[in-house]
Amino acid sequence: MKLWRGGRLATLAGDSGWGLIEDGAMLVEGGLLRWVGPTADAPAAEEVVNLHGALVTPGLVDCHTHLVYGGNRANEFEQRLHGASYADIARAGGGIRSTVAATRAASEAELLADATKRAQALIREGVTTVEVKSGYGLDAATEARMLRVARQLTGLDVRTTYLAAHALPPEFSDADAYIAAVCDWLPALHAQGLVDAVDAFCEHIAFSPAQVARVFDAAQQLNLPFKLHAEQLSDQGGAALAASYRALSCDHLEYLSPAGVQAMAQAGTVAVLLPGAFYALKETKLPPVAALREAGVAIAIATDHNPGSSPTLSPLLMLNMACVLFGLTPEEALRGLTVNGARALGLADRGQLVPGQRADFCLWDGAHPRELAACFGHNPLIKRVRGGE
Amino acid sequence: MKLWRGGRLATLAGDSGWGLIEDGAMLVEGGLLRWVGPTADAPAAEEVVNLHGALVTPGLVDCHTHLVYGGNRANEFEQRLHGASYADIARAGGGIRSTVAATRAASEAELLADATKRAQALIREGVTTVEVKSGYGLDAATEARMLRVARQLTGLDVRTTYLAAHALPPEFSDADAYIAAVCDWLPALHAQGLVDAVDAFCEHIAFSPAQVARVFDAAQQLNLPFKLHAEQLSDQGGAALAASYRALSCDHLEYLSPAGVQAMAQAGTVAVLLPGAFYALKETKLPPVAALREAGVAIAIATDHNPGSSPTLSPLLMLNMACVLFGLTPEEALRGLTVNGARALGLADRGQLVPGQRADFCLWDGAHPRELAACFGHNPLIKRVRGGE
Ligand SMILES: [Zn+2]
Ligand SMILES: [Zn+2]
Repeated sequence: MKLWRGGRLATLAGDSGWGLIEDGAMLVEGGLLRWVGPTADAPAAEEVVNLHGALVTPGLVDCHTHLVYGGNRANEFEQRLHGASYADIARAGGGIRSTVAATRAASEAELLADATKRAQALIREGVTTVEVKSGYGLDAATEARMLRVARQLTGLDVRTTYLAAHALPPEFSDADAYIAAVCDWLPALHAQGLVDAVDAFCEHIAFSPAQVARVFDAAQQLNLPFKLHAEQLSDQGGAALAASYRALSCDHLEYLSPAGVQAMAQAGTVAVLLPGAFYALKETKLPPVAALREAGVAIAIATDHNPGSSPTLSPLLMLNMACVLFGLTPEEALRGLTVNGARALGLADRGQLVPGQRADFCLWDGAHPRELAACFGHNPLIKRVRGGE
Repeated sequence: MKLWRGGRLATLAGDSGWGLIEDGAMLVEGGLLRWVGPTADAPAAEEVVNLHGALVTPGLVDCHTHLVYGGNRANEFEQRLHGASYADIARAGGGIRSTVAATRAASEAELLADATKRAQALIREGVTTVEVKSGYGLDAATEARMLRVARQLTGLDVRTTYLAAHALPPEFSDADAYIAAVCDWLPALHAQGLVDAVDAFCEHIAFSPAQVARVFDAAQQLNLPFKLHAEQLSDQGGAALAASYRALSCDHLEYLSPAGVQAMAQAGTVAVLLPGAFYALKETKLPPVAALREAGVAIAIATDHNPGSSPTLSPLLMLNMACVLFGLTPEEALRGLTVNGARALGLADRGQLVPGQRADFCLWDGAHPRELAACFGHNPLIKRVRGGE
């Protein structure tokens, strides 16, 4: 039993509001929060830690990343700024195909070394739980390697997502044939304990709703939950499809239709907004934040870390971008990176500082949680505590 | 004599290009670079440091910041996202006036403690030289206090800029009368060694070109160099005025006219672009980068750190934003944060890894300098060396 006392707690208790406790305390036992309230009312404990007025929030949950891959795409970034088009770059073997080639060529140790550095960067900004997707292997062996690497990351809780339906690999010309392979590979990966959820990229440049449905059907036979990259570049009706499968989340959603919003609301599907990709791609179409709010759809935000469209390792920058670019309030943004991020992963045991939740929390140098979102390119983290440690 | 060998040097030698030396070495003596070239050709030295292939760039020069102030404006950020207008906030005493009030109320020790934290954040991303402006005092005592605090910052080279002509303080109703006071205060501050340059805010919400000219005239009598916040929100002809005084730099410049570009080119005035403020204010008018390039105006970039429009402490994020938002190439952006940042401060002794320059450099975890700009919200700094230490 350990009592953390004298902090400014942003508990995020309930469905809205900061849940502020000005001079607050938390009792931790067995990795869980046992009691949360004003320091003055706190129970006694063997061990006591003085928080010296630090701001305390739940640990950050980055619910959408592509953290494992080989190589980087800085050369393409530079080429575009020297005038090359996306088409030029694709013709030269660039884009996602270059990452697939580099990932296939990388050993498990190399992938783990690179992903570990990235995970460390997330940890330095307070991330306690991260989701990591496969999807740069696009063959059975490399998809498995990516998922094994994700499972080996230490210092944070990892949820793995199988995203073989990310792009058509070079050795397939027929998307339906590839989708059949994607469905074939899944049971063995699941049997090895490598898959927590199944995802796909539903887009005119990727896979159709009918193809996505086949992947979901394969996942459903294994009782695996679903997520979907949906409505990023066009309205494919992917969100409504995912909602019909009661997906955990639909992600991106710039082109989400009113019907898609309603379907997600009815299914309890979380909307994961990804401001880093919006920023880097210079998107102009905004996700329908007002409609999501009105319909009561929970909104999460995430880094979407990937080497192409969102090479960021800063969840705090995503807090700010969610506000500046998407108009979320600082409280909505922080809920998006904590309790709603956890919901997007099917995790009900974290994301709020309330009794019974995991003792995952961050101490920050600040007076109010809105300061975390109001600045950009800063890191006021003092200490991160995960499972009480 | 110390030899740093085995690094990938991005020297930025000459007027364009990365100046890459794949396996490079630098000989340092007395805080200066004495020799730079391929490791294979390096002279002998008593002390040798192996760079193990680290990427090496010049130390970063953040040539435009408002690093010293009291309070913060996170509450206003939050209010705006809950629907308050800038006018609502100004009526409630917000905006720059709230920072002036908080700065006047803060002791020198408080201001120094806060500014030191901010300087430390810049140092953690590789800044070796920073400019710090006054301008939240708007009275003689507080302007002096801000400049004294800037002078006391340690761990980086500080250049101070007198920016009393930043806004009209509440105790003045007549801008001309205030400008007279601004000119009156300057000689004493200069006599105390507190002023390296003089700046003003030329804008319809601040001061007119005629008022700015009076400040420049006062500075000229003391042989102090000039800078100007110009053409941020409208074309006031400020850049042409500043160029006629052979100003070191004009800063912001979203509304710079073709005539302004030509005047700056002829005067050798540096264009300091501030993508953080552009981003945070959701500006849509872009600075005329193509015209600046064509006219041969040197482009610098900076954080513009301030509590209102650019609360960022990440020069690396500015590299990325300069590319993504303004279309600079990664090389232009890095020159903007090194050699051209130094030029914007009148410093010719830093910003490139060439013999004779100060031994200010950064070691980064990366293979190519473009990687520094291609990612956002990351910090691959391994080590920062300033004056050879
Ligand atoms: Zn993604
Ligand atoms: Zn400024």
